[in-house]
Amino acid sequence: MWEHSVENSRIILAGAGNLATCLGTALVKAGVTPTAIWSRSEASASALAAKCGCPFTTDINALPDADIVITAVSDDALPHVAGQLAARYSDALLAHTAGSVAMDIWREAGTKHYGVFYPMQTFSKSKEVDFSHVGIFIEACAEEEYLKLEQLANRVSPMVYRATSRQRGYLHIAAVYACNFANAMYSMAYDLLEKEGLPFEVMLPLIDETAAKLHHLSPAEAQTGPARRGDETIMRKQQAMLDGTKSEVYALVSSYIAEKAKNNKQL
Amino acid sequence: MWEHSVENSRIILAGAGNLATCLGTALVKAGVTPTAIWSRSEASASALAAKCGCPFTTDINALPDADIVITAVSDDALPHVAGQLAARYSDALLAHTAGSVAMDIWREAGTKHYGVFYPMQTFSKSKEVDFSHVGIFIEACAEEEYLKLEQLANRVSPMVYRATSRQRGYLHIAAVYACNFANAMYSMAYDLLEKEGLPFEVMLPLIDETAAKLHHLSPAEAQTGPARRGDETIMRKQQAMLDGTKSEVYALVSSYIAEKAKNNKQL
Repeated sequence: MWEHSVENSRIILAGAGNLATCLGTALVKAGVTPTAIWSRSEASASALAAKCGCPFTTDINALPDADIVITAVSDDALPHVAGQLAARYSDALLAHTAGSVAMDIWREAGTKHYGVFYPMQTFSKSKEVDFSHVGIFIEACAEEEYLKLEQLANRVSPMVYRATSRQRGYLHIAAVYACNFANAMYSMAYDLLEKEGLPFEVMLPLIDETAAKLHHLSPAEAQTGPARRGDETIMRKQQAMLDGTKSEVYALVSSYIAEKAKNNKQL
Repeated sequence: MWEHSVENSRIILAGAGNLATCLGTALVKAGVTPTAIWSRSEASASALAAKCGCPFTTDINALPDADIVITAVSDDALPHVAGQLAARYSDALLAHTAGSVAMDIWREAGTKHYGVFYPMQTFSKSKEVDFSHVGIFIEACAEEEYLKLEQLANRVSPMVYRATSRQRGYLHIAAVYACNFANAMYSMAYDLLEKEGLPFEVMLPLIDETAAKLHHLSPAEAQTGPARRGDETIMRKQQAMLDGTKSEVYALVSSYIAEKAKNNKQL
C-alpha cells in the first residue's frame, strides 16, 4: 500500500485551526509540503493553504489521493470527519491529533490503517511555535503504521514518544493544569494588577523564572510562597483583599500547597 | 546623617533565608559587599556570610554601625526584628523586603529613616537568581530615603519601580497567583504523570511556551484549552478521571476561564 518514504509521501491536513496552522507551517519548514488542506471553513482553509503553498478544499470527497491524513479538528467534530475520511480513503494512514480521544475512534469509523499524532503544546494562530521543542506522542494500530507516524513526527521534532490512549488522556489533563490552568493563574494576576493601575509586564521575570526553575527542581522543591511556608497571617490578609472566584481559588490552591508540603516533610 | 554614596555605604542584611541569600550574592557580584549578616540561625548566618565574604552575628546589638539595613525575615518575625533594629540604629535607613507588610511597621517601631525594598521574584537557596531580571519595588518615608534605596536597587537590577504599600499588597497577591499558584498547577500535572509512569520532563516545552507567550499576548489572548473552547465533552471526560482537590480545582478554574472568555467576546 504505502510505497513512499515520508519525504515523498502525500500528506493531507484535515483542519485549519491553531494546531493545523502551526503543524502545517512546521512541515513546510521541514521540507514536507502538504498535498492539500481541508477545512469546513473556506476562510481558514484558504489562509493555511496560502501559508503552505498548496491547494485547499472544503469538500472531503474532492480531496486528492494521499498516503497520510492528519486531522486537527475539534473533538466534537472528529467522529463525523473521521467517518467521512474513512469513506474517502481506503488505504491511507489516518491519524488524529486529539489528546483526549482514544485511537479506537478510527476502528469505529471503519478504516484499516490508523493512529494518533498528538503534539502536546499550546497553539495560537498568531504565535508561531518552534516545533522542534514540541513533544509528539504517537500511537498506532500496528507497528508499520507506528513507524510511519514516528518518521513524520521526527521531521518536525526530536521529542517523539510512544503513548497509549490511556496515557495520552492523562497527558492531556496534565497539560490542562500545566498550561491552561497556569495561564488562568496569570490571568487572575493580570486582573488584580489592572485594577491597581500596574502594568502586567512587571510579572514577566517572575513568570519566566517560575517556569525556568522546573528545569532544575521538581514542582514540590520549587514551591515557594505563603501557603508553602504556612504563613497564616499573610494568607488571612490576602484572602480579605479578594472576592469571588479568585478568593475560592486562593483557598483551594493554598490548601493543596499546604497539604503537599506536609506530606513532603513526612517522607 | 548619610554621607556616603551607595558604593561606599555600609549595608547590613538582617536575615539569611532564600531572599537574603540571593540578594547578598547579587550585591557581592555588583561590587557591594555587605558589612555584616545577622540571622537568628547561626548556621544560616554563617553560610551566607561565607558566600558574601563578610562577618556575621546572631545578636542584633553586636552588629557594627551601618548606613542601610535591609531585613529579609519572615513576616511573623518582622515586627520584633524591626523593633530591635530601631533600638540599635538611630540614624541608619531601615528597609524591609516583604510584599504584604505596610511601610508603617517602621514608624511604629520608632525609627526615623525607613522604607521598603521589595524584589518580586521566587527565591530558592539552591537556585541562583539573576537579579538583573528582578523587578524591585521601592517605597520610602521621604524622597531622600527613596533615592538611596533606588540607587541601591539599581546596582542589582535595571527594573526599579515606585509602589505604595497598597499597590505592593496587590503585587504580592498577583505574584502568589502567577508564581506560587502556577507552580501548584505544575505540581498537579506532576502528580498525574507520575501515577501513569510518565516523566515530568515531557511537560517542560509546554510550560516554557505557556510562559513565553505572555511576552507577545495578554493572558486572555494566550488562553487555550477545553474550557476556553467550551468543549463540554472533554471537560466531562477529564473531570471523571480526577478526584479530590484536583477535581475541585478543575471545576473552579474551568468556570473562571469560560466566564472570562464569555466576557471577552462581549467586549
